[in-house]
Amino acid sequence: MLTTTNPTTGTTQDTDIRATTADETAAIAESARRAFDSLRGRSRQWRAALLEAMADGLEHRRAELVSVAHAETGLGEVRLNGELSRSQFQFRLFAEALREGSYLEATIDHAGDTPLGHGPDLRRMLFPIGPVAVFGSSNFPFAFSVAGGDTASALAGGNTVILKAHSSHLLTSRLSFQILAAAAEGFGAPDGTIGIIFGTESGRVLVADPRIAAVGFTGSLGAGQALIEIINAREVPIPFFGELSSLNPLIVTTAAAEERTAAIGEGLFGSFTLGSGQFCTKPGVAFLPVGASGDAILADLSARTAAAGGMVLLNSRISTSLTSILGRITDEGGARLVATGSSGGAGILAAPTLLEIGADEFTAATAEEAFGPVLVVVRFKTLDQIFRAVDLMPASLTATVHHGSNEPDLVRRMSDKLAPTVGRLVFNGFPTGVRVSWAQHHGGNWPSTNSQHTSVGVSAIRRFLRPMAFQDAPDLVLPEELREESVTIPRRINGALVLPRQD
Amino acid sequence: MLTTTNPTTGTTQDTDIRATTADETAAIAESARRAFDSLRGRSRQWRAALLEAMADGLEHRRAELVSVAHAETGLGEVRLNGELSRSQFQFRLFAEALREGSYLEATIDHAGDTPLGHGPDLRRMLFPIGPVAVFGSSNFPFAFSVAGGDTASALAGGNTVILKAHSSHLLTSRLSFQILAAAAEGFGAPDGTIGIIFGTESGRVLVADPRIAAVGFTGSLGAGQALIEIINAREVPIPFFGELSSLNPLIVTTAAAEERTAAIGEGLFGSFTLGSGQFCTKPGVAFLPVGASGDAILADLSARTAAAGGMVLLNSRISTSLTSILGRITDEGGARLVATGSSGGAGILAAPTLLEIGADEFTAATAEEAFGPVLVVVRFKTLDQIFRAVDLMPASLTATVHHGSNEPDLVRRMSDKLAPTVGRLVFNGFPTGVRVSWAQHHGGNWPSTNSQHTSVGVSAIRRFLRPMAFQDAPDLVLPEELREESVTIPRRINGALVLPRQD
Repeated sequence: MLTTTNPTTGTTQDTDIRATTADETAAIAESARRAFDSLRGRSRQWRAALLEAMADGLEHRRAELVSVAHAETGLGEVRLNGELSRSQFQFRLFAEALREGSYLEATIDHAGDTPLGHGPDLRRMLFPIGPVAVFGSSNFPFAFSVAGGDTASALAGGNTVILKAHSSHLLTSRLSFQILAAAAEGFGAPDGTIGIIFGTESGRVLVADPRIAAVGFTGSLGAGQALIEIINAREVPIPFFGELSSLNPLIVTTAAAEERTAAIGEGLFGSFTLGSGQFCTKPGVAFLPVGASGDAILADLSARTAAAGGMVLLNSRISTSLTSILGRITDEGGARLVATGSSGGAGILAAPTLLEIGADEFTAATAEEAFGPVLVVVRFKTLDQIFRAVDLMPASLTATVHHGSNEPDLVRRMSDKLAPTVGRLVFNGFPTGVRVSWAQHHGGNWPSTNSQHTSVGVSAIRRFLRPMAFQDAPDLVLPEELREESVTIPRRINGALVLPRQD
Repeated sequence: MLTTTNPTTGTTQDTDIRATTADETAAIAESARRAFDSLRGRSRQWRAALLEAMADGLEHRRAELVSVAHAETGLGEVRLNGELSRSQFQFRLFAEALREGSYLEATIDHAGDTPLGHGPDLRRMLFPIGPVAVFGSSNFPFAFSVAGGDTASALAGGNTVILKAHSSHLLTSRLSFQILAAAAEGFGAPDGTIGIIFGTESGRVLVADPRIAAVGFTGSLGAGQALIEIINAREVPIPFFGELSSLNPLIVTTAAAEERTAAIGEGLFGSFTLGSGQFCTKPGVAFLPVGASGDAILADLSARTAAAGGMVLLNSRISTSLTSILGRITDEGGARLVATGSSGGAGILAAPTLLEIGADEFTAATAEEAFGPVLVVVRFKTLDQIFRAVDLMPASLTATVHHGSNEPDLVRRMSDKLAPTVGRLVFNGFPTGVRVSWAQHHGGNWPSTNSQHTSVGVSAIRRFLRPMAFQDAPDLVLPEELREESVTIPRRINGALVLPRQD
């Protein structure tokens, strides 16, 4: 039987869950394939209501979900309640996007004369791709796991989903799955619409299965690369959407440090220790100016760090890895310890840790993501020093600029430098806390992700869709959204965007 | 020096072009990187005008381009004039798309209360990705080569382009490049906006170069896979958009065969021999019913094939490969020769070839793409026989259904079966001749392409763009299209699509 560990107490116990065998995994994939075929006949409206039923199901079991998840993750009830609300919101937002319909990119070119001769009638829109394998992350047991955004966006697109339960929260995964599966069944969705597998090896089997059409993954760079290798060895390669690793540099200009000394210290400490620093958007490197205002922020961070207790990590793998990384960042990366909090007590704990280095000392070895409550402060005098250090960093999901009230040229130069390498550029705020909305982009250049897509927000659905065009097709084979008389969604007709009439 | 062969005469001669060295390739990549940085400051309007200047440049040198291309490809002046018009049209259509602006997917969520608490202001749109390597194909020396759709769409997106000249039309590639480069220079584009390299090895060096941000490729599955392997070995993987291989099944129902016997025979012969059968959308397998009407179409095809002269192929590699494939399709695939045209005469010629097999005899070995004027006719009695054979075929760019005037159930069943595996489904027409327009989709499941994108039509631009979001950004760092007061392009604001006011 597989085991589960309570990181708050450090105790490990058997579950009644065993690893899914290769044969069982194949049967689950076959069931997902059949359900996918059956789902083709359902409408956007039906899928929207299904997603809402799933959100309702999660809400109905809120107390139980939060309790089980806290026991497995130690993330605390406040945070877990908020995260569960976010998971539900994601399902409801995708339902809204389905009803609105733009995500289909419905496009019609009527037959007619063109500069190149007669053109046929063409009607293009996006269609689901097939069963999607979803690998959730340890650090968001709801919003990036079984009940997470990959599941919601893949289902929204009309696909079926097979979840690989995260070893760090097996019981939360199973309970979440049971709730979603019950909602699906109650709603008349075909058996196999959603499935789950347990165990590391079953995940490898799943990714290699020819029935799987795409993989959504949130986790470490190493684990992601291992799955990419499996995909590269498949007869038919499939898209892999991985959210992998991120350093998230944060820059505080001298003016910002002077104008908002206390607020930046407090905010930055809160951001790098949020969820014990186990956020993919955690600011890992903060640039503070040399001088009094930078010193003051550093002193504030130092005092807060020293006063903080040990922070519960999700599992012992993260703890072991963090110790190694901290060793490398100090030994090879040259960062010096400024302050460390307590690490005593029961459970899997990390001491919050504040490190410092001069901008000119910063090397690629300093630029390693430390998944946990660790911040490297880089002290700078000039913008060129910041840019040199940024050039040594891998690309990130986010970058953040804290600027003063009147330094437009500096702000513009920093934005021009940072924007091309990140997915989201934050001003006078903190990168943790990712708004789930239409305009969100949670992605970035390698190694933060490996795609040109987002895993948070409405456009995440685009990952699990493919375009297809009908040429001179009779109405009877066209989806409703591509029929001539359909006026329920925005469409592009002969190049012009046309909105549906408002009733 | 590299050589060029005139396939119409079979004569090979030296050019004054030599293979680009690794150092030269690196210098060209560096120049493209610098130009990319410099292009960031240019507007959509500027790029639209640049694309139009390139189209004008191609038109200005039309006679010379067609003459040089005919000597290298043997495709004939009528076809090459048409293809050059298509190339120009592609540049102009992307210019239109740039001015319209929807392709940016500009999306704004205002700051405010949400069900999850306060949400920051978020503004997302698509941005260029960097220098793009473009590998054109032998069979479209204009529209899928230096002056082709990959070049136009990558430049439209704000990227720079480095072309790998196809060995089969080196002089056409160089002349096309000189025209585009002169137009760019005349328009004030930075040096390095467009570059070119020659020689197979330089192409490998280019794909491995860390400055290259994406690869657009049209060509054989084998050559594409070789480039994918190079990408997989890069430190930073990059997107590869390959258009690779396609069988393009075409089905003629009994009713269609009875209603339009002559038209289908004539059209099908024209489609599989167009451009000597060297189209990625060539129908390679045609299903004809057992019985009198199917016999009549086969007899028509047979007579036309037997009467046809040898058809000029693009190069001797294609000729050698075609001979091998024909051997496999007959020996291992079980297809029988029905008719073959003449293969005598000077030059690199292929005899048009018509093969036949019973639906129940069809195996995966029959389902090999033969790049050249070859058609395999599959004789069927039932729809199930067709579906069984389709299941043995790799996915294709297109599938085609010829149906009768009153068989709605049959049409719907075929559409449901074929649509999930192809990029474009054609009714009562022929798949060759790809309309360049807003609704076009030229792509499909592996091995026809490896992506969820198209390489023809307006949405091809999406391949060379990446999303990025600004959070709480001051106006001064925002691109014009994301500023609050901007009303020049369609945008999504707080979830609702808003069109610009018409003046």
